[in-house]
Amino acid sequence: MADKNMAVGKESEKMKGKQKAGGTYEKLKPYLEQAMALQTALMLFEWDNETLAPKKAGPYTAKVQGALSVLYQDLMAGEPVKSLLSQCQEEEGLTEAERAIVREAVEEKERLECIPPDEYRAFQELVSKSTRIWAKAREGQDFEAFAPTLEKIIFYQKKFAGYRAKKGQKLYDVMLDHYEKGFSMEKLDEFFGLLKKELVPLLHRIQDSGVEVETGFLKGGYPPEKQRELAEYLAEYVGFDFEKGVLSESAHPFTTNLHNHDVRMTTHYKERMDSSLFSVIHESGHAIYEMGVADELTQTLVGQGASMGMHESQSRFFENIVGRDEAFWEPIYPKLQELFPEKLRDVSRKDFVRAVNQVQPGLIRTEADELTYSLHVLIRYELEKQLIEDGLDVEKLPGLWADKYEEYLGIRPQNPAEGVLQDIHWAQGSFGYFPSYALGSAFAAQMAAFMKKSMDFGELLRKGEVKVIRETLRGHIHRFGKLRDSRRLLKDMTGEDFNPQYYVEYLKGKYGELYGIGG
Amino acid sequence: MADKNMAVGKESEKMKGKQKAGGTYEKLKPYLEQAMALQTALMLFEWDNETLAPKKAGPYTAKVQGALSVLYQDLMAGEPVKSLLSQCQEEEGLTEAERAIVREAVEEKERLECIPPDEYRAFQELVSKSTRIWAKAREGQDFEAFAPTLEKIIFYQKKFAGYRAKKGQKLYDVMLDHYEKGFSMEKLDEFFGLLKKELVPLLHRIQDSGVEVETGFLKGGYPPEKQRELAEYLAEYVGFDFEKGVLSESAHPFTTNLHNHDVRMTTHYKERMDSSLFSVIHESGHAIYEMGVADELTQTLVGQGASMGMHESQSRFFENIVGRDEAFWEPIYPKLQELFPEKLRDVSRKDFVRAVNQVQPGLIRTEADELTYSLHVLIRYELEKQLIEDGLDVEKLPGLWADKYEEYLGIRPQNPAEGVLQDIHWAQGSFGYFPSYALGSAFAAQMAAFMKKSMDFGELLRKGEVKVIRETLRGHIHRFGKLRDSRRLLKDMTGEDFNPQYYVEYLKGKYGELYGIGG
Repeated sequence: MADKNMAVGKESEKMKGKQKAGGTYEKLKPYLEQAMALQTALMLFEWDNETLAPKKAGPYTAKVQGALSVLYQDLMAGEPVKSLLSQCQEEEGLTEAERAIVREAVEEKERLECIPPDEYRAFQELVSKSTRIWAKAREGQDFEAFAPTLEKIIFYQKKFAGYRAKKGQKLYDVMLDHYEKGFSMEKLDEFFGLLKKELVPLLHRIQDSGVEVETGFLKGGYPPEKQRELAEYLAEYVGFDFEKGVLSESAHPFTTNLHNHDVRMTTHYKERMDSSLFSVIHESGHAIYEMGVADELTQTLVGQGASMGMHESQSRFFENIVGRDEAFWEPIYPKLQELFPEKLRDVSRKDFVRAVNQVQPGLIRTEADELTYSLHVLIRYELEKQLIEDGLDVEKLPGLWADKYEEYLGIRPQNPAEGVLQDIHWAQGSFGYFPSYALGSAFAAQMAAFMKKSMDFGELLRKGEVKVIRETLRGHIHRFGKLRDSRRLLKDMTGEDFNPQYYVEYLKGKYGELYGIGG
Repeated sequence: MADKNMAVGKESEKMKGKQKAGGTYEKLKPYLEQAMALQTALMLFEWDNETLAPKKAGPYTAKVQGALSVLYQDLMAGEPVKSLLSQCQEEEGLTEAERAIVREAVEEKERLECIPPDEYRAFQELVSKSTRIWAKAREGQDFEAFAPTLEKIIFYQKKFAGYRAKKGQKLYDVMLDHYEKGFSMEKLDEFFGLLKKELVPLLHRIQDSGVEVETGFLKGGYPPEKQRELAEYLAEYVGFDFEKGVLSESAHPFTTNLHNHDVRMTTHYKERMDSSLFSVIHESGHAIYEMGVADELTQTLVGQGASMGMHESQSRFFENIVGRDEAFWEPIYPKLQELFPEKLRDVSRKDFVRAVNQVQPGLIRTEADELTYSLHVLIRYELEKQLIEDGLDVEKLPGLWADKYEEYLGIRPQNPAEGVLQDIHWAQGSFGYFPSYALGSAFAAQMAAFMKKSMDFGELLRKGEVKVIRETLRGHIHRFGKLRDSRRLLKDMTGEDFNPQYYVEYLKGKYGELYGIGG
């Protein structure tokens, strides 16, 4: 139904154009389909490597992945795609989807062709070793062992950003743009400035409140097979369609997809039961997004989620705004008690919900609660900016990192493994990625504020009607894939440009109530 | 160690050639690597479809597979591979492996380019529907529903064989050659003639012997999770390396591989425990073959098993010659009793081995015992020959099928589902494939006869030293991949060309003893 209003791939729309200039787009299409097929194969290999492939397959399978990548690059940056694309940019009468696909293809082609092949190869070689070096350094709590590699990675990243930069564009802005269009440093300084100003004091008020939250019952005595049963139940409950998806296990939870009819996510079963529980709801949010992309768009260059931040908004919407709301548990908490009678029989729903919403500043981002999470991201944003724009000496990172944790979160890492070495992102060459985690939370809060105006959100959750919420998100966000960027989607949905004030209000309201302090 | 004698990819060998004509082969190599990478991706998709992919993914993923196939075909049959290949055919100084790779690539290129693209597409479309039509017809026990499709498939298969035929070559010989080089109708008539002459009377003698074998205890009361434990134990016991392989479940057991460090097999757990038990040993034989291919050959066009028949020889060697020998069970039968105490405590090893060697003519090939199996294949060979060479009317198939079963096996199918519709092969367009099943058994028997001359086979099994047997097969067969054809490998190993007499002797000896009848 929602799809009726969407002007995508419809014949009528196609015909609206003044002229169909020789069907160049039709000539381009099979090449793009082949490129997408190669990407899909690469995704399947990645999935398989993380979930199933035997231990010793790695180096051999890496060759296969390398060859497929080269085929992809040759296809997208070579002839005939190159000429067809430049003809298509002039072509009139394309649908919105076709224009968006051409736009994405041009960007991809430019990204691939602007870097001199020998430099690209040297960087690929560097990165193929760097995550191992990073992992070893982390294990040995030895930043010095990683520093020279990190320096080289930053060198290449800046170089490549320089190739891609438009006139006068700053290098870190080029990197940010890759993950989230429309969020330059100017915009992010404002965003993170607000978070720092509002959330650090809020955290202090919570810590000063003297409220103690009991969480001991969340840990231990939750057998993996029961956790698995719960994971499948919850995934289905929030809307993960097992006829179009798979839930497996891996060291770190993630979601990937081959197309909108094959979306795969993983989890891991730990001692603390809320770890897998919320990771499954989180990954379900990512998966539901991909399952909701319109059939007309899937398997094209705009057939995936709009951006990193928009993706994260959907996973966090389901994890936090839906999954950590007491109303969500009203219909299903008895099911939880039934699965773990010995652990939860005597724990009230209220106490369970309080426990999974406990605020507890910690050193590790991936274990952070909903409130402190953005402060972890803030620290990384500030440091990345200094590394890329101010030539910050890599050697100074561990100290600065520790100082910032002390300043914002009140705790100080005792070694680099729980400090600057905790994340894999920089080792992979991903600079400019972190902000999207915080943006996602803010997007989600803005969407929630909008939705709560037109529907009784709590009542829907209490009635178990997650579907209504999900379909609303699908209608406004999911079905459009990458057709429009995140700011446009947000504006089309909420009637307003990105406004982080909603996020601050949401957190103040939520924790004000939970900790009995004034917002 | 075994690899030391193998003249593959060694610099010294490379240099032996009179001249290295401009390194054309080096130019060809990256293209072939890309082609292999595409094939590997297609194999992973196939594996994934059979074992994990969600229900509704099919039609979307099929598009991806289609696009990858086209990329593969364009690469192998297009420029620059075409010119490079014809230059390489003239090039001197290539190693044995390089020459074999060029030979395979030329064959593949010719196979791909000789069929007019529109006919190939029409056939692909036909085949994409035909297995569904076949499955439905089988379900409905309705041969008429499949006959017109089968007729079309035969039409195309004959047409395509015609394109590939050398001057004067018969069409069925072209098809046979595709699966097993060196085994034309002339050779197979002789082979199957011998089987018919020797095995049909042997079967009658067994049936007349009056010996009853107790098999009731094999069925029921074997929980799947215990069967799984046994499967993993047995696979490892015969030499499946779980660091280079995966065991999963699927509707029909099969083995596939990405390369020699990633070999995957499946099984299914049924009520009759010997079904999965021997299917796992059988598939382990296939897997061990692929794991044994030399590192220098894997990921090239000669990096897989030599032929269908040679592959089947290894799976049947492990399943029958190793796995159904009482000596094999001597060290591990207690383990089996321990896993299923209630079922097997009171069953002696001797009775267990007798039970899993029972001869019982049946209608279904895949459930046949070791002796009658080849007779099922004989029937298919005779009918295929008539269909392709004598223009046998498809409508007459069910009747002829039933008559042959009655003649050779003494039983008559009551409907086409247990008769002519039982196998998927024809619906997939595979004509000439069946003989390799019987050839495999005969290859295995010839190898076993050779090995038994130089080692105490029974003693090795009794001591649990399957490794010695496996390494012997690896040294003579596995490591060579597709470098040499099956007749050459057999001759190099046993010192003798293919000789089916060993197979007949093996069966006569084995069943003569088991059923107490004169060989």
